[in-house]
Amino acid sequence: MSGICQILGMGPGDPELLTLKAVRLLAGADCVAWFAACGRPGHARVIAGAHVPDHAEELRFDYPFTTGVSVEDPRYLIEMAAFYDDCAARLARELERGRRIALLCEGDPFLYGSAMYLFDRLSPHFRCEIVPGITGMSGCWSAAALPMVHGDDVLSVLPATMDEESLVTWLCKGDAHVIMKIGRNLDKVRAALARSGRESKAIYVERGTQSGQLCLPLERAPEKAPYFSMVLVPGRARAR
Amino acid sequence: MSGICQILGMGPGDPELLTLKAVRLLAGADCVAWFAACGRPGHARVIAGAHVPDHAEELRFDYPFTTGVSVEDPRYLIEMAAFYDDCAARLARELERGRRIALLCEGDPFLYGSAMYLFDRLSPHFRCEIVPGITGMSGCWSAAALPMVHGDDVLSVLPATMDEESLVTWLCKGDAHVIMKIGRNLDKVRAALARSGRESKAIYVERGTQSGQLCLPLERAPEKAPYFSMVLVPGRARAR
Repeated sequence: MSGICQILGMGPGDPELLTLKAVRLLAGADCVAWFAACGRPGHARVIAGAHVPDHAEELRFDYPFTTGVSVEDPRYLIEMAAFYDDCAARLARELERGRRIALLCEGDPFLYGSAMYLFDRLSPHFRCEIVPGITGMSGCWSAAALPMVHGDDVLSVLPATMDEESLVTWLCKGDAHVIMKIGRNLDKVRAALARSGRESKAIYVERGTQSGQLCLPLERAPEKAPYFSMVLVPGRARAR
Repeated sequence: MSGICQILGMGPGDPELLTLKAVRLLAGADCVAWFAACGRPGHARVIAGAHVPDHAEELRFDYPFTTGVSVEDPRYLIEMAAFYDDCAARLARELERGRRIALLCEGDPFLYGSAMYLFDRLSPHFRCEIVPGITGMSGCWSAAALPMVHGDDVLSVLPATMDEESLVTWLCKGDAHVIMKIGRNLDKVRAALARSGRESKAIYVERGTQSGQLCLPLERAPEKAPYFSMVLVPGRARAR
């Protein structure tokens, strides 16, 4: 007897952007697990809201870092690996008891989702199922009503954490661009867009599909951006 | 008095991957419109299934071409523009009567969706709302249980219609790659993956999330691929 780990995409923030499948599987879960930044409520759990059944046990995984340790710091990968080992061990104990786990993920689980690291650890030993979610980027370009990727456009999804030269190289290549993880990288992103001649088309989106949503031309965006904001540069729309 | 055009993402194929919002808006639609290839049932309409209310009028838009005319043929853009003009005019007549239209789109409307061309024509004159959908690529990498884009990976989404040299250049750059619109381009895609040293990691997905789904290493994929198949090359998973 062993259970199943159902990794559920919770979408970009609006609880109405949950899928019928995520709602059904949540209702049948024995145990609901999610990641959260220390001291924060856990965005995926907030989205799931009342769809988490009363009978379900809840497991909260607090990230060991927030933004205090840089990804380049050698401690980062070591401590994150130990953290994911511990989370996977906690889920494995539940799975061995035959329980049905719903592991909640913001956006889509396999697009920049932490759940991938638990999947890597659990899937050799336990049944796992992945339920895709609406990506943050789809949520943002829909909220901004910005037709994004046309016909034969290439779309590049770029983390703003890369250096400015690399950003410029990417922005000069291809058609449509999504720049994720803006946060403290906003000035660098602005500079790279200006150097690649794409600044005037860039749209800034903060809290897309959520309350307090902000969609603005980048030129009029605030001075400071949260980590989960993004910048969208639409493709070329050759056919009209 | 004027209506609203609600552009609804229908997701990759599994009807359970509809969002709660798409289901709610469908139920309230006066008129449901969708694109279809000539003689085919219309994939977005099939996904919507019984969520289309009995009272709704249905508008079917038959594409003027299937695969008979190449995108490079100068007739293509001219005839497609006339086709989209005609579709938009039909929707405008309904909107002027104050009707609530649901325009159904496979996947996510603003990622390679034809609905963008109707949005361009209607949004200056009528209220439009975009409801994102699960993208085909999220559906496919979830179906294949393939962790795809990690940490600081760059994701590039490439149409297989580009020439082999360009494909090789893209595949040698970045981390994770999705190659869309495989169809008659399968041999070229195989060659480009081999030249860029990424063939052994490539996964072929056909009819992802639908009945008859096929997920295989590209090396064992069939000789012929339908247009709506894709090839996935996962990113680097630096953190483990």
